[in-house]
Amino acid sequence: MSVIYDRVALIGLGLIASSMGHAMKRHGLAGHVAGHAKSEATRSAALEIGFCQSVHATAAEAVRDADLVVLAVPVGAMGEVAAAIAPYLKPGATVTDVGSVKQAVVAEVAPHLPAGVQFIPGHPLAGTEHSGPHSGFASLFENRWCILTPPAAADPHAVARLRALWEAMGANVDEMDAAHHDLVLAVVSHTPHLIAYTMVGVADHLGQVTESEVIKYSASGFRDFTRIAASDPTMWRDVFLTNKEATLDILGRFTEELFVLQRAIRMGDGQALFDYFTRTRAIRRGVIEAGQDTAAPDFGRTKVDP
Amino acid sequence: MSVIYDRVALIGLGLIASSMGHAMKRHGLAGHVAGHAKSEATRSAALEIGFCQSVHATAAEAVRDADLVVLAVPVGAMGEVAAAIAPYLKPGATVTDVGSVKQAVVAEVAPHLPAGVQFIPGHPLAGTEHSGPHSGFASLFENRWCILTPPAAADPHAVARLRALWEAMGANVDEMDAAHHDLVLAVVSHTPHLIAYTMVGVADHLGQVTESEVIKYSASGFRDFTRIAASDPTMWRDVFLTNKEATLDILGRFTEELFVLQRAIRMGDGQALFDYFTRTRAIRRGVIEAGQDTAAPDFGRTKVDP
Repeated sequence: MSVIYDRVALIGLGLIASSMGHAMKRHGLAGHVAGHAKSEATRSAALEIGFCQSVHATAAEAVRDADLVVLAVPVGAMGEVAAAIAPYLKPGATVTDVGSVKQAVVAEVAPHLPAGVQFIPGHPLAGTEHSGPHSGFASLFENRWCILTPPAAADPHAVARLRALWEAMGANVDEMDAAHHDLVLAVVSHTPHLIAYTMVGVADHLGQVTESEVIKYSASGFRDFTRIAASDPTMWRDVFLTNKEATLDILGRFTEELFVLQRAIRMGDGQALFDYFTRTRAIRRGVIEAGQDTAAPDFGRTKVDP
Repeated sequence: MSVIYDRVALIGLGLIASSMGHAMKRHGLAGHVAGHAKSEATRSAALEIGFCQSVHATAAEAVRDADLVVLAVPVGAMGEVAAAIAPYLKPGATVTDVGSVKQAVVAEVAPHLPAGVQFIPGHPLAGTEHSGPHSGFASLFENRWCILTPPAAADPHAVARLRALWEAMGANVDEMDAAHHDLVLAVVSHTPHLIAYTMVGVADHLGQVTESEVIKYSASGFRDFTRIAASDPTMWRDVFLTNKEATLDILGRFTEELFVLQRAIRMGDGQALFDYFTRTRAIRRGVIEAGQDTAAPDFGRTKVDP
């Protein structure tokens, strides 16, 4: 493929940014990839691994002359980074991000950016339970969704170009508004993560059932919860703090539903339980038909690249 | 390996029984495997697939002369089956089951069985989201746990022989009392399943987020819930009705924990969230170290045999 952006700056060099670096390198999508991370060890690792061609001690230096700036720091740090880079952005540059929440990022970032810079928020729905510059791999985004939430005033050409980059990295791209994104993600990702964290916490606190028993017998359902609950604590703290409204809304619905099932158990209402469990099967079938689950090793979630 | 039981009767021919049939055949562990299922189509399938050498229209016929009888029907049907086969059991035979709940099975089955028959309840912690005679495969139990809950008066030789069968099919065998089993399983399996069913149900009811969106974006966490929630509705109805006390206990603890996290979100207490999420990571590490998760295709959960 051909170069889509002459110079890309990755701010933050964790799982997502390093995977973007690998993918852009593999497919020849960027003339130069500059990187910045707060930690010198992370910057050195990025150069050594080779997913950046240059690293810079400050975000301001990294974004100089960049045609695309990717904010790949925790959601809670986006505003500070935006303020730091704003004076150094190239006129006409596109700024995007990869945060799991969009309304809060828009509120934190957009006010800092100068006129003439396009801000097109984004969120690749891809990840593993690993983090840091060593965790990235070029195929992370393949056949995964990337949601863009361009503001109404965004330049269509800038949106099309960013979309082309994600598609060239293997992603399927959707566009929606930021508020809808945050609600959808509260359902399919944020609330499930909180629930998984909670269930793992319950298991941890129980004295009668030992931790070794929980671990030994985890294959019977609990294992899937531990996988979800092993994700990066900083990232998830910020997700819940910044997508508070939608998460609390879905959590409220979840608790109501759970109480209905709990009552059916207490009352011995087998028919209600059977009917409920039958309905949920159909959704699972939909997930498989939509190609969002596979028989591939580890569901493509851990590093499978050579 | 050599024959452990001359004649085995499988009562119920679903995922677990068919996998046992395949495994006993592959490893030469039974002289003859007789099978019974209520449905004639299921019986024909079992013969055709070849994991039974004979099938019988009634459970009573199937258990005749059997040295081992395996009750592999939903937990709610165990008592009825036990009553039906009791007069036809061979003196000295062992009866076991594969139900996900143990105290209720003991209460339903034991009173029917004649003296001289050993009842040794069992529970292989293995399964897939599929059910029926076509879903079984010989390696289902490999490196999975099978918990036996022999009563205090059980004949040690009969217990050792049943343990040998499970080990020969690849399982790791543990023994504990039935009440402890039910509590452990409420933590690692039953409550996680109920929660997964609930979360999938919440997604299904939401009007603002379309079902197609839920399915498209499920890779971001929700997918693991749909996998859990796709299990057999009859089996799970019976699990919750028969392991009521332990499930309600764990559900109560779960709701309390969830409210603590929900409050932290509402109050913006990032430190509490971060600390909680950091603790759960350690449990995930334990699961991987214990070998209960693998990078193998589909975590060994679907049919991987040739």
